[in-house]
Amino acid sequence: MPNPTAAMLVIGDEILSGRTRDSNMHHLAGKLTERGIDLREVRVVADDAAAIEAAARALSDSYDHVFTSGGIGPTHDDITADCIAAAKGAKIDVRDDARAILQAHYDRQGSDLNDARLRMARIPDGAVLIENPVSAAPGFTLDNIHVMAGVPQIFEAMVEGLLPRLTGGAPMQSRTLRVERGEGDIAQPLSDVAQAHPELSVGSYPFVQNGQFGVNIVVRGSDPDALDGAMAKLREHFPEAVE
Amino acid sequence: MPNPTAAMLVIGDEILSGRTRDSNMHHLAGKLTERGIDLREVRVVADDAAAIEAAARALSDSYDHVFTSGGIGPTHDDITADCIAAAKGAKIDVRDDARAILQAHYDRQGSDLNDARLRMARIPDGAVLIENPVSAAPGFTLDNIHVMAGVPQIFEAMVEGLLPRLTGGAPMQSRTLRVERGEGDIAQPLSDVAQAHPELSVGSYPFVQNGQFGVNIVVRGSDPDALDGAMAKLREHFPEAVE
Repeated sequence: MPNPTAAMLVIGDEILSGRTRDSNMHHLAGKLTERGIDLREVRVVADDAAAIEAAARALSDSYDHVFTSGGIGPTHDDITADCIAAAKGAKIDVRDDARAILQAHYDRQGSDLNDARLRMARIPDGAVLIENPVSAAPGFTLDNIHVMAGVPQIFEAMVEGLLPRLTGGAPMQSRTLRVERGEGDIAQPLSDVAQAHPELSVGSYPFVQNGQFGVNIVVRGSDPDALDGAMAKLREHFPEAVE
Repeated sequence: MPNPTAAMLVIGDEILSGRTRDSNMHHLAGKLTERGIDLREVRVVADDAAAIEAAARALSDSYDHVFTSGGIGPTHDDITADCIAAAKGAKIDVRDDARAILQAHYDRQGSDLNDARLRMARIPDGAVLIENPVSAAPGFTLDNIHVMAGVPQIFEAMVEGLLPRLTGGAPMQSRTLRVERGEGDIAQPLSDVAQAHPELSVGSYPFVQNGQFGVNIVVRGSDPDALDGAMAKLREHFPEAVE
């Protein structure tokens, strides 16, 4: 059975303006790979209701899972929960279970559960909450969309809690061979190995280091024997390469 | 006149698998903001022809500019140039001007312009070349799509050469106020300032530092007077804040 597929939707003006460098994409990509869920696409959109809704709908229709990050806080620019509800045609309002979580959290802190904070209890009908062990305000799963916070510490904690719930596939393994040659010198043998192993993905990732060109050859797949076979062929072609 | 709009299309399995952390998005976002071009959307797709073509077509139809990174090297998984040509209905083949650039480069190096390297001279009819001062193989602009390399040093050099060619808008300026309070405590005054300044974008970016919550309030816009006015109001609300 093929692995489940996934997309990520990152919501945030601050990334598109270059103010903030996103780290959630890289984190999620690694975790999904470990879990055998294939991340196929990522979209980053602005804090704009039409853009968020359209992207959520398109990705939810195309992939088994959609993971979102950002836009679920208490301020006026936090519109993700309402947009996801709209994309799925679900009603949304302050929900008692989410309100109780927030009330307990702010009671412990001695803070007030004011109107702004209460916005974080807006959860669509039919959604399952995602726990937030950092700052209480929960994420949620609605249909195949998993809505999480943008602050990296919170996003990562939510992913940690969510992923064990999802059915994974065969974990993808990868092997890397570092070759200190230009890509143009290795292209033909690389293509031969790729053609001989259609069950694997054979990629080449050039780099420049100290003015010298080199390539990381990365072979990916879920069958360890096939990976060993492809790596043996590559080592014959590039005996000087480093694993 | 509103600023030109832009999208970015990142092509690369290695980013979706979590092997590599993309840096081109953050670099381009900052450069476009300086130049007054509004980056509205980013998509990351795999080395898959159908995915690249569909994304290129959708983004090219929706925004004034599309910037791509990745997939223009000499190996079998480098398919971006052909996909962009297909998305635009342009013919593509080895072009004499690009071949001459590569020939001169490999002659200087004493290397052979072999079949693999010659693939990097495949340029669509009607495209304008983008100079590559690092490793010669050019990018290109076809219609409103700017096709560039994925290796960060090369991508950044190509952006440097390309951007002065494009008509920019009013550069967006931003001011930041750092407040050591939870978002829930500042949401109401923030919303008031945002409503009073519809010409500005007022964002709040929470963080966790040493276990304490804080928020960076970022006000963005192209009118310095409006920015000053909004910042003065924010400082009244949050006298302890740090700029």
